[in-house]
Amino acid sequence: MKILAFGGSLRSGSFSKTILNESVKLTPENVKMEIFDIGQIPLFDQDYEKDMPEIVKNFKQIVKNADAILIVTPEYNYSIPGFLKNAMDWASRPYGDNAFEDKPAAIISCSTGMLGGSRAQYHLRQTLVFLNMHTINKPEVMIPFVDKKINNNELTDKETKDKIAGIIKALADWAERIKVK
Amino acid sequence: MKILAFGGSLRSGSFSKTILNESVKLTPENVKMEIFDIGQIPLFDQDYEKDMPEIVKNFKQIVKNADAILIVTPEYNYSIPGFLKNAMDWASRPYGDNAFEDKPAAIISCSTGMLGGSRAQYHLRQTLVFLNMHTINKPEVMIPFVDKKINNNELTDKETKDKIAGIIKALADWAERIKVK
Amino acid sequence: MKILAFGGSLRSGSFSKTILNESVKLTPENVKMEIFDIGQIPLFDQDYEKDMPEIVKNFKQIVKNADAILIVTPEYNYSIPGFLKNAMDWASRPYGDNAFEDKPAAIISCSTGMLGGSRAQYHLRQTLVFLNMHTINKPEVMIPFVDKKINNNELTDKETKDKIAGIIKALADWAERIKVK
Amino acid sequence: MKILAFGGSLRSGSFSKTILNESVKLTPENVKMEIFDIGQIPLFDQDYEKDMPEIVKNFKQIVKNADAILIVTPEYNYSIPGFLKNAMDWASRPYGDNAFEDKPAAIISCSTGMLGGSRAQYHLRQTLVFLNMHTINKPEVMIPFVDKKINNNELTDKETKDKIAGIIKALADWAERIKVK
Repeated sequence: MKILAFGGSLRSGSFSKTILNESVKLTPENVKMEIFDIGQIPLFDQDYEKDMPEIVKNFKQIVKNADAILIVTPEYNYSIPGFLKNAMDWASRPYGDNAFEDKPAAIISCSTGMLGGSRAQYHLRQTLVFLNMHTINKPEVMIPFVDKKINNNELTDKETKDKIAGIIKALADWAERIKVK
Repeated sequence: MKILAFGGSLRSGSFSKTILNESVKLTPENVKMEIFDIGQIPLFDQDYEKDMPEIVKNFKQIVKNADAILIVTPEYNYSIPGFLKNAMDWASRPYGDNAFEDKPAAIISCSTGMLGGSRAQYHLRQTLVFLNMHTINKPEVMIPFVDKKINNNELTDKETKDKIAGIIKALADWAERIKVK
Repeated sequence: MKILAFGGSLRSGSFSKTILNESVKLTPENVKMEIFDIGQIPLFDQDYEKDMPEIVKNFKQIVKNADAILIVTPEYNYSIPGFLKNAMDWASRPYGDNAFEDKPAAIISCSTGMLGGSRAQYHLRQTLVFLNMHTINKPEVMIPFVDKKINNNELTDKETKDKIAGIIKALADWAERIKVK
Repeated sequence: MKILAFGGSLRSGSFSKTILNESVKLTPENVKMEIFDIGQIPLFDQDYEKDMPEIVKNFKQIVKNADAILIVTPEYNYSIPGFLKNAMDWASRPYGDNAFEDKPAAIISCSTGMLGGSRAQYHLRQTLVFLNMHTINKPEVMIPFVDKKINNNELTDKETKDKIAGIIKALADWAERIKVK
């Protein structure tokens, strides 16, 4: 079972990037999690969708090779960040070659406020409907006050670690359950 | 009354860019509409939010100078495009210097499908709540089958032209109504 | 395979009720579809959730017995109708006895306007996340201008019939695919 | 300035009903707030929209007489409760006689969980777009862990009281600002 994880803000010291990195550590032994850095992907321009930048080609191929997708997102302005949506816009194109097609998925969001990025999660879920991804319902992991739970780029909150481990396990189980036999 | 308009896909021949350009032509004489091209804005990186790229500084200043905002958006993957969200993410930062604060706003969306980009509109509306913009309710302009209404980068559909003229007038009226006297 | 279908406005001659009834006719032979009339369910009052009205007990039992759920909904005021949400609020209670738990689901919406009830669909999808239902992504069936497609309480539009048959088949296939073996 | 407030679950001892009642106490002297009990409104049936039950006629008239609307809502199943939507569905009908037309509005939500009913708020906001209500953006009042803040049907949390007073003041100011002179 290979899970591809991506997301996380671009700034150094990003809380969501830390959560992304911690997710790898919290992945059970029988599952392999890989991270793709989407921070270098340029703005989507449909004129180039059939002659994509190399980084997008790589991203698409790695998405296609994955058995399941984990997206870790901060919330910007009550929705998903532009850079995250932009990466997904590329990987869904051109028409008929959506890299995310039929992939099981899970979402983790975080914020420094009390809602933990929940507004971003529901917008992202709607996008995943179009991409024909099968997003798990439970557990939902929304990490509020994330700045209080990270120290020196390390997640220090036990409860949050357990939640992350829980959603990764749930994603792996779901991917197994819905696999076409 | 000065309206700033932005949005529109990056590709040449973009339908939404055509709608954006047509909006200027359909603006009444007593209103001035200016377009800003957001297609050159790099990915938002919070490390640079206090030392922004020149293009973002310009964008923010032009937003601040406007009396009202018109956003013209296509729909990508059941939401707003990454490049549009990205531009707005920049202009809302740093904390305490949101260029969109208290601006009246209106949205036009278009798509080649039957829903005319409506899903993008409702996501965008939620973002505008956080940005403290005052978005008009009516008319809603969602242009379905937009490819059938444009010829050689010109909007040829009379009904759509009337709708665009109507929403621009409604935005100007709303901006006048809510102006703090 | 037993599918339970419900929804449909209360008025006689309701378009959504017609779509609900037509769905039964369009169900393939190897699947059984039953309709439950939610129009007699009283307003949800948590004081009675452990001593429910008989009709709600029946509804919950029939939901539990179903292998999959089809919801047919009109759109009221850019969301799902109160009566539909009310029936689902009852059936999800009391805490720990959610009748919809782990059920595969599909949604059909209709409206007399051009959007076909799509706004209701996305709100309903979010509710189904909480209810831990597994809603199919494709096909989405949103029936615009439904009043032009119905004559004497019969659906006359061939294309719409095909879409309904398609979503029922997709729901049955999905229910089979995700069944816990 | 007259504000009409409604919402609140039907059960006795409802937390949201307590918040509704407390809102009246927290209304400034120069504003009058009245509550309407929507718990007795029957399920909406369009066959009766031109011959409405007396209670709905009363509700509509009181809505029309108000200068602004405050809605206090719990969250049921990640959206607004059926009974609340149902009351609003009645009051928006028949076509052309929407009681909420052009009214300023504010929303308070509460829940026993950490999100404070935020998911219900954003769904309700979308409905208010159709109803052509002008919903304030800030402050947003979402009351998490509401059960810990109420004792014997009285709100005991000072911070929450301040937030409620703040949103009522903001609603009154907004109503004054957008009044057509």
